[in-house]
Amino acid sequence: MPSIKVAILGFGTVGEGVYRILQEKREEIKKSTGFTVDVVSILVKDKAKERMPIKGAQITDNIQEILNNPEIDVVFEAIVGEEPAYTYLSDAIEKGCHIITANKTMFAKHGPALLKHAEFRDVQVGFEATTAGGVPIIRTVTNLLAGDRVKRIQGILNGTSNFILTKMRDEGSSFKQALSAAQQNGYAEADPTDDVSGTDAFRKLMILSSLAFGRQPDWEDVPVLGIDHLEPDEILDASKGDLRYRHVADIWKDEKGKLQAAVGPVLIGADHPLFGIDGVDNAVIVNTEYLGQLTLVGPGAGMYPTGSAMVADLLHVIRQHEAILVPN
Amino acid sequence: MPSIKVAILGFGTVGEGVYRILQEKREEIKKSTGFTVDVVSILVKDKAKERMPIKGAQITDNIQEILNNPEIDVVFEAIVGEEPAYTYLSDAIEKGCHIITANKTMFAKHGPALLKHAEFRDVQVGFEATTAGGVPIIRTVTNLLAGDRVKRIQGILNGTSNFILTKMRDEGSSFKQALSAAQQNGYAEADPTDDVSGTDAFRKLMILSSLAFGRQPDWEDVPVLGIDHLEPDEILDASKGDLRYRHVADIWKDEKGKLQAAVGPVLIGADHPLFGIDGVDNAVIVNTEYLGQLTLVGPGAGMYPTGSAMVADLLHVIRQHEAILVPN
Repeated sequence: MPSIKVAILGFGTVGEGVYRILQEKREEIKKSTGFTVDVVSILVKDKAKERMPIKGAQITDNIQEILNNPEIDVVFEAIVGEEPAYTYLSDAIEKGCHIITANKTMFAKHGPALLKHAEFRDVQVGFEATTAGGVPIIRTVTNLLAGDRVKRIQGILNGTSNFILTKMRDEGSSFKQALSAAQQNGYAEADPTDDVSGTDAFRKLMILSSLAFGRQPDWEDVPVLGIDHLEPDEILDASKGDLRYRHVADIWKDEKGKLQAAVGPVLIGADHPLFGIDGVDNAVIVNTEYLGQLTLVGPGAGMYPTGSAMVADLLHVIRQHEAILVPN
Repeated sequence: MPSIKVAILGFGTVGEGVYRILQEKREEIKKSTGFTVDVVSILVKDKAKERMPIKGAQITDNIQEILNNPEIDVVFEAIVGEEPAYTYLSDAIEKGCHIITANKTMFAKHGPALLKHAEFRDVQVGFEATTAGGVPIIRTVTNLLAGDRVKRIQGILNGTSNFILTKMRDEGSSFKQALSAAQQNGYAEADPTDDVSGTDAFRKLMILSSLAFGRQPDWEDVPVLGIDHLEPDEILDASKGDLRYRHVADIWKDEKGKLQAAVGPVLIGADHPLFGIDGVDNAVIVNTEYLGQLTLVGPGAGMYPTGSAMVADLLHVIRQHEAILVPN
């Protein structure tokens, strides 16, 4: 049975999710693809930290041990922040590895360069998990693009903000109270700035822009607002008028073909597909020339949803490169 | 430039949609796949009927002229009803053609046999357009299955029924009034029996069952109800209690691993993802082990949505068989 050797960079929630799914689904993956998938190396910051038992994989804090291992076919990356993630992945591509990333901060900025580099080295880049967690928006847009044309993408791309807005509406809480509930539920980081300022949703929108339109607008030209300035009264008043605040990231081509984008809270009515999306869910609406309007709704984060998006990318890599991988 | 030769069986709304998209997107498809796609033959019932101008393709009422043409790589089928569609596609597979169908009546019953046959002959079967029109539910479930496990699928799979239920609720119309509005808008056939009796939704559910669970329940064991018995009073009373009738097709595995299915009107509350789906849209909810719950919403029918689903299948065939198709 041919084997695919993978490394996981970063072993937080997402990295652990990938590891668990690959263990739990080992037999199914073998059956459906004809390959066994073996995790041979895991890159961690602190080797001494207590973690779940790992069988058969080397735990290392030295990226060179992974990059210098010629056996490795695929590198999963689940680190936070631009660097050193970008350099690691760039080096992995140079060594001929396929890469699969969940790192939106890095990919919003360096995704286009990584994709070019990967094309040159004839390897694949999976980035489903960078945007909207378990919602397969990257694969769906990729498929649509083949014979259709995307005109606009709008979405709730930050589950933390959506949870807070839902809480403020349902319970009349202040922003601070709702944020602390989100933190208690594990839906917000200790430093929630990127989530509540709109920055996180903006990054995901830029990833979608590159995919759907082949380019990104100038970042400085995009107005980005968060939800941190909203008062409970504004939200309750909207409710009375059957309107709801949603934090929406929006990108479209105007009549002149120029890319326009905006990120911020928007008042929407009951007829809008985003009206009913409560809690930590993400939702993406895609408007195309032929299909019309398609809406996808699902979990925006979480160990298993995000991990399963990365494993789905791996299986796509396997199917695309069956012929190349077999000799291993 | 290598060329892919296709035939279209049936030139009603859907067949014409495929033809139009292939003409309009000729350059884009060439650019993205490296292949030109040429429609070389179109099978019609009545050659004398007036239709849009067709360039470069033979119009025939004789299927043998298509089956005996060794040039043809892919057969699109957009005929209505089980036969002769099944025989035509079976013969096309036997000749080594890839097939792409929108025919749910035929595929619910004969899909499993066609898929086996196609596997044996090493050709592909595209059937995205059989279920939920432009909503890419077949591709999405196929991708999910690779590394995840489907537990349940529920959906609004018949746009006509959903339009009628929406109209009855919004305007207090009787079933008959709403049906005739649907017919005037082109949303219902002259004979709407299959749509309003639940049969159409049932067939699509059986197609999803084969895909997601590898088998179908005994058809006789599945309770199938339509919307034709609902009274306006029942619908208005439900509205007052913030409930809505939706026509839902539902399939799941029970605790013993037995497939259970049901098709019929269901009262749902505002928290349910199907609550807000009005008009002719279709919606499908997929519950899986890892991803959790994913909802897709989009147009359930129409020339361009359905045609674009079939063209997406073609592009998938091209990507899968690039190596095989090149020598043409």
